[in-house]
Amino acid sequence: MSQKANSEKKIVGIIGLGLIGGSMAIDLKRRGFASRVLGVESDPVHASAAKEIGLVDEIVSYEDCISLSDIVVVAVPVGAAVKMLPDILDRFQAQGTQDKIVIDTCSTKAHIVRSVHYHPMRPAYVATHPMAGTEYSGPWAAMPGLFDGRACIFANSEESDPKALATIEGLYDTLNMRPAYMNADNHDVHTAYVSHISHVTSFALALTVLDKEKDEKHIFDLASGGFSSTVRLAKSSADMWVPILVQNRENVLHVIETYIEKMEAFRKAIEEFDEEGIRDLIEQANRIKKIIR
Amino acid sequence: MSQKANSEKKIVGIIGLGLIGGSMAIDLKRRGFASRVLGVESDPVHASAAKEIGLVDEIVSYEDCISLSDIVVVAVPVGAAVKMLPDILDRFQAQGTQDKIVIDTCSTKAHIVRSVHYHPMRPAYVATHPMAGTEYSGPWAAMPGLFDGRACIFANSEESDPKALATIEGLYDTLNMRPAYMNADNHDVHTAYVSHISHVTSFALALTVLDKEKDEKHIFDLASGGFSSTVRLAKSSADMWVPILVQNRENVLHVIETYIEKMEAFRKAIEEFDEEGIRDLIEQANRIKKIIR
Repeated sequence: MSQKANSEKKIVGIIGLGLIGGSMAIDLKRRGFASRVLGVESDPVHASAAKEIGLVDEIVSYEDCISLSDIVVVAVPVGAAVKMLPDILDRFQAQGTQDKIVIDTCSTKAHIVRSVHYHPMRPAYVATHPMAGTEYSGPWAAMPGLFDGRACIFANSEESDPKALATIEGLYDTLNMRPAYMNADNHDVHTAYVSHISHVTSFALALTVLDKEKDEKHIFDLASGGFSSTVRLAKSSADMWVPILVQNRENVLHVIETYIEKMEAFRKAIEEFDEEGIRDLIEQANRIKKIIR
Repeated sequence: MSQKANSEKKIVGIIGLGLIGGSMAIDLKRRGFASRVLGVESDPVHASAAKEIGLVDEIVSYEDCISLSDIVVVAVPVGAAVKMLPDILDRFQAQGTQDKIVIDTCSTKAHIVRSVHYHPMRPAYVATHPMAGTEYSGPWAAMPGLFDGRACIFANSEESDPKALATIEGLYDTLNMRPAYMNADNHDVHTAYVSHISHVTSFALALTVLDKEKDEKHIFDLASGGFSSTVRLAKSSADMWVPILVQNRENVLHVIETYIEKMEAFRKAIEEFDEEGIRDLIEQANRIKKIIR
């Protein structure tokens, strides 16, 4: 990691003060990476909440954020981020700056990386996906320590300026994240499997239960810890998840297809009273123990 | 609750010293409901572990457990329990006892309740389902406080002797469980929705990921908290879940069918780039917030 990159505190401008942007704001300031944290938030209620909670030092305009910050963090849903990123690089170019860096935190990487692939300021962009979150959103969901111990993916990092990359590695090191390096397309395949499909299965589970169980009192009574943890992600916001599912459409469809096949295998085995078949499926599934603590 | 029922400590015999039986043993003894806890465990390794950990005062034979205990708790997988329960009532009858009680803790209730419906000793049986658990099993998984604050279902409680019922209400009160009363058939419908389907979806999720993701290192790296909580139940044991899925076959199949329809709705909306459709599905699913904290 470049010595110079870490020798001075940075002004960090965060666009989007939700769970991810807000949580970054807290820890980058507290842990001394940022000298100042500026925030941009289009929703006025969220903006004033973020200021009141103390997530940021100041709420500024989008334009001021880009001109005042050393590092701009785009922490908005991926649909908006894909439009915003080229504009930010345009502005860097117009300002004639060499040292500014922009990063995004989106959960899909192929489209956004492709959107600026030929931009002359491409080296100033570091594509990242900090793999952390909860089912809650908005500035009220922000919390210290959200990223601690989790993985952060750097996508197509060879397209970034090495000095910019080192600075951002330092940023995520401050957040106590484990770095992983990956091609953007591979990233999207992997996250379809270990993140996106989990959300779809939770949404479908919630829909199933809500659809059939008219007596809500009973759901509440009978819901054990197992159900709660399985359905937890179904609280996740449409604003965030619609663009993810659309942008990662091919991969997500592929995983849904496989998933439905597995459900059909269970259905068939149960239908046929095939106890050995059910046992085989469960014991295969149990191998997940080796991977997930 | 009958005063007499709670006026004296009971000898409790627990058949099956796994997560449920073992956790009951701990708290019934510690909290003073049981004067002595006897244990029956067919697996010799589990039996000696249960003794070493101190879950029970003594490991006894099945026969001794039934003759020595005031309350017999059948905490074995439901397939075995359905065979064991009539035998225990037979033995109560042969002993000419009037005061003994047997309960089960199984996750499906219709079959087991039906199996002793016409037994002359039926009133000595209280059918219960303490809705608590983790994805772990065996005596090592037993823990104090497992049941605290959870719901306990009493199925077809009108078929039990009122005094026996009051005693068992006292037992679950000691475990800090909220009682709920339900017809056994309704119980099985409800648990298919809020417990059994969660397990099937987790198993299918684990199978999907394990099937496609050859590079296990990447699953581990990318697995966020969301994936872990959604897939957690996939660690659950086949010994417990094969009989549950088979015994609750009709209800589980019905729920799986609805669930696959919901997954297909997602697939179709994503396939057709139908952002409004995806948003509708997610926002409907979000209503689960009102029910599950």
